[in-house]
Amino acid sequence: MDIGNLQTPCLLLDRGRLESNIETMADKFKGLGVALRPHLKTPKSVDVARRLQAHGAERFTVSTLKEAEYFAGAGFGDLLYALSIVPDKLARVAALNRAGSDVAVCLDTVDGANAAAGTVVEGAPVRVFLEVDVDRHRTGLRPDEPRLLEIAKIVDGAAHLELAGVFAHAGESYHAGTIDEIREQARNEQALTRQTAEVLRQNGFDCPNVSVGSTPTATFGEGFDGITEARPGVYVFQDLFQANLGVCTVDDIAVSVLATVVTHHPATNKLVIDAGGLALSKDQMTGSQDNDCGYGLLTDADGSVLANLHVAGVSQEHGYVTTRDGSSLDTAAFPVGRKLRILPNHACMTAAAHEVYHVIENGAVTDTWGRVNGW
Amino acid sequence: MDIGNLQTPCLLLDRGRLESNIETMADKFKGLGVALRPHLKTPKSVDVARRLQAHGAERFTVSTLKEAEYFAGAGFGDLLYALSIVPDKLARVAALNRAGSDVAVCLDTVDGANAAAGTVVEGAPVRVFLEVDVDRHRTGLRPDEPRLLEIAKIVDGAAHLELAGVFAHAGESYHAGTIDEIREQARNEQALTRQTAEVLRQNGFDCPNVSVGSTPTATFGEGFDGITEARPGVYVFQDLFQANLGVCTVDDIAVSVLATVVTHHPATNKLVIDAGGLALSKDQMTGSQDNDCGYGLLTDADGSVLANLHVAGVSQEHGYVTTRDGSSLDTAAFPVGRKLRILPNHACMTAAAHEVYHVIENGAVTDTWGRVNGW
Repeated sequence: MDIGNLQTPCLLLDRGRLESNIETMADKFKGLGVALRPHLKTPKSVDVARRLQAHGAERFTVSTLKEAEYFAGAGFGDLLYALSIVPDKLARVAALNRAGSDVAVCLDTVDGANAAAGTVVEGAPVRVFLEVDVDRHRTGLRPDEPRLLEIAKIVDGAAHLELAGVFAHAGESYHAGTIDEIREQARNEQALTRQTAEVLRQNGFDCPNVSVGSTPTATFGEGFDGITEARPGVYVFQDLFQANLGVCTVDDIAVSVLATVVTHHPATNKLVIDAGGLALSKDQMTGSQDNDCGYGLLTDADGSVLANLHVAGVSQEHGYVTTRDGSSLDTAAFPVGRKLRILPNHACMTAAAHEVYHVIENGAVTDTWGRVNGW
Repeated sequence: MDIGNLQTPCLLLDRGRLESNIETMADKFKGLGVALRPHLKTPKSVDVARRLQAHGAERFTVSTLKEAEYFAGAGFGDLLYALSIVPDKLARVAALNRAGSDVAVCLDTVDGANAAAGTVVEGAPVRVFLEVDVDRHRTGLRPDEPRLLEIAKIVDGAAHLELAGVFAHAGESYHAGTIDEIREQARNEQALTRQTAEVLRQNGFDCPNVSVGSTPTATFGEGFDGITEARPGVYVFQDLFQANLGVCTVDDIAVSVLATVVTHHPATNKLVIDAGGLALSKDQMTGSQDNDCGYGLLTDADGSVLANLHVAGVSQEHGYVTTRDGSSLDTAAFPVGRKLRILPNHACMTAAAHEVYHVIENGAVTDTWGRVNGW
């Protein structure tokens, strides 16, 4: 089918770019002898997970229990649910595991560990990863915190829990100014995660898994000695934020939103498309970077970049497109009805606004892939 | 059911507040003798539309064709699709109308009018509203623009289209500093919309509908002489942005996101909840107001406001809660597992992240109402 026959706004997925992004990362970690546990919060799609599997991935990360249930139902059993577990969610995890999956959970507080230990669940012990705070970015424990061993002891003492390892997410790599800085953050992420595993082992705890995360540190990180797995996610699609970081180029971005020019507003030098805050998301994360892309950059329907255009503003269903340099817009070149594509600032957020991917290969729509949203 | 039994994050809808918001607006416009055409882009729910209907609404506004199809399928036939129409969408509208609905469309460019006139559709003529630009905010035509009559002539000349009136949306009222300013914008919105209708009539065109919009101008607007309908939307739920504008109070906000405390991060004085950028949306529209609410303000599970807390940051599934005044957070008061609610900056965006409303009355969950997302 021709792209022009799709109702807009809708989400396109360039199959060739997806395959290439998956392959590049898979090859790197095969070469290192380190497992990949791709984070499925970005694609949330069984079809994409199958492509990752085809390139060797056997374990995955998820961000919601709905993802866990969806992927487990499709046969992807080795999952890490990477948000600190709370009692009622532990019950949902245990139900999945009794049905044959091996969903691991994570913890990083004494309070949470006591709550999990106090919530006895039936079935095989649920594996627990302790989260390491490598950069004061978000959550987790430092290797030298007394809480670390306290939590390990609580987990170790609960018959329905099993200490499975440690994991970190170098979120601060999203604020790196240079690739050298990302490399430094990757070194730090690996070192602190390894150190946390060592502290546990020195104190008599098992720590088979030593897991690190983030697309920037997975892309530029070196060594990975003592690391057992890496959990990048957004690399499968890439986006403008990653391109600005230097992790990819704009031509690697595999997802885009197809939109239609619905009107012009000459008084404000804008053309208006039918992809607004809901179809693009209101994520403006490139606003913190040198190359602020507004709510996204434009390409033609065939994917060729329209370098001087960006989505400067959005309402719920309107996107306001204007020139990046302030020059006068040639509205005659963008008649009402013309199809355009928007490259996302943040692929995870934009993809989550849509129910399906329209898979494109060589300019034609060849398939429709599902995804799971919600909780 | 007790709220504590819901899986989080999820969307709560306070039935009492909803009814009160609906009733207040309905009573105002009944008193004025002006029809309400509530904008359903906010609730996107047949159940909410039925409550509006119970308070007298007989016509509605929608922002997507999926909404049009969903509401038409539930018997809500008189709809205005308020995004400039393009040919392939006109075909979808005509299909709905052949099945018994009366979905009207809108236009504001010569280009779009020619495209619509050139797309002959079967069935009764599709009603067309011309959009009026009252404040250079977004889209539309000024009453003195020669394009106005040119477009009216194109529509009038197409047998499958019927000129049905004019409509405006005073979007700039969202940037008003005072209620007097909103009143002034309402006067301007009414005056320019009426003037546009007059220009059409003086030139021999029918203009039965003269429609104005926006919750702020509908709330504070006076007079409404010569106006046939008003199209506010967000008033059914209200939100922090509207409260900051003075349109409502925080206690009128009918929707909130129920979340669970999943961990603490003492090093950065944060507690972390399981509602992040996806469950709350990344809308930061209160950031342009004096009272910046971050990604939302907190209440207890019972709805009582926790005045010194806000969601200061989000990742995809993490929300980072801290104090508004920078004081030290008493994490012991918010143990892991505790339920909290987040009042949204922008109800339309937050609600769109969810598939259903958990309706609450007197603190208990009494119903589940559906909504339609996507396109």
